[in-house]
Amino acid sequence: MKAFEKLISSLKRLPGLGPKQAERIALHLLRVSGAESEALIGAIREAKTNIRTCAVCFTYSETEICAICSDEARDRATLCVVEEPSDVSAIERSRSFRGRYHVLHGALSPLEGIGPDMIRTRELFERVRADSGVREVILATDPDTEGEATALYLHEALAKFPVKITRIALGVPMGGDLDYVDERTMSSALLGRREIVHKES
Amino acid sequence: MKAFEKLISSLKRLPGLGPKQAERIALHLLRVSGAESEALIGAIREAKTNIRTCAVCFTYSETEICAICSDEARDRATLCVVEEPSDVSAIERSRSFRGRYHVLHGALSPLEGIGPDMIRTRELFERVRADSGVREVILATDPDTEGEATALYLHEALAKFPVKITRIALGVPMGGDLDYVDERTMSSALLGRREIVHKES
Repeated sequence: MKAFEKLISSLKRLPGLGPKQAERIALHLLRVSGAESEALIGAIREAKTNIRTCAVCFTYSETEICAICSDEARDRATLCVVEEPSDVSAIERSRSFRGRYHVLHGALSPLEGIGPDMIRTRELFERVRADSGVREVILATDPDTEGEATALYLHEALAKFPVKITRIALGVPMGGDLDYVDERTMSSALLGRREIVHKES
Repeated sequence: MKAFEKLISSLKRLPGLGPKQAERIALHLLRVSGAESEALIGAIREAKTNIRTCAVCFTYSETEICAICSDEARDRATLCVVEEPSDVSAIERSRSFRGRYHVLHGALSPLEGIGPDMIRTRELFERVRADSGVREVILATDPDTEGEATALYLHEALAKFPVKITRIALGVPMGGDLDYVDERTMSSALLGRREIVHKES
């Protein structure tokens, strides 16, 4: 069945879908009503049409300026730099950050030929230069080779601005088992150890 | 973001997609080009338009009669009854069956009000009645409550035809660990035990 194979191979391009799950979803789409499959198609098209990137921080938004950037209650002094809009969602879910974001839309990768001009670094420098309210830039790029290279590059490039530059802590994850932590993570956790301060009673 | 939430909730209706994977796929769809998302949309629509059920066995097919039913090399004497087209794929992958299929498109479920007339049982009886070549009907419905009830019903309803009626073996799965086999499967495996026949040397 040509049309069936084609649908499966389109579905397999979606992240995290293996051949078996793609087939399961394809069979599901064949079984459901035309209205149901058209609802999915409509949702994909509506999202592609209506969602753009925020003119300030470049996360996804349905408005010119996203909800976070237009929220006056958010701290202007702290700017958290991430690779992707999904990282903004992940940090927001943690409810531990009340500042603003800057989404690079990628990370530096000499191997793949991705240099500073191909991700939104220029816009970051502009923001830090123009907004004198920024006191701290948190580098929250991924803890992998590209993310580390990007953090290193940004650390050097931002040195000329009067802002504090920090990197998110790399260490053992909560709820994890030390036995299963890889050596580089363990080494980061040891290097980044912090003194336990006794609470005053 | 209304459009984003809507896309996620549409994706969550697909089988096996939890909230996190739905969000990951939604972000992927936003990132890819319009041509890429339209290719997926086209594949869904083409499959919905071109794929129908085979007029003989009711599995999915792009032609009036499916490839298996039109294959003269397939054994006409054995008819394997399954619940869904995906079961046909699963059995074909095992390369252990050379007969033909009959897809019920469901299973009996008194709880959900699904009776024999709501699945393709009448067409099965017609096939067995009309095709005097059928010698054996294999009941390969799922080994769950609905599948067992369906097998029992078909066993009784087919008794009036001069055909052998068999049920696929229920037992411990290959590569499994006996420790992890549930009690009902273990009980089926013991009840269905077979004598080991020494091969003649």
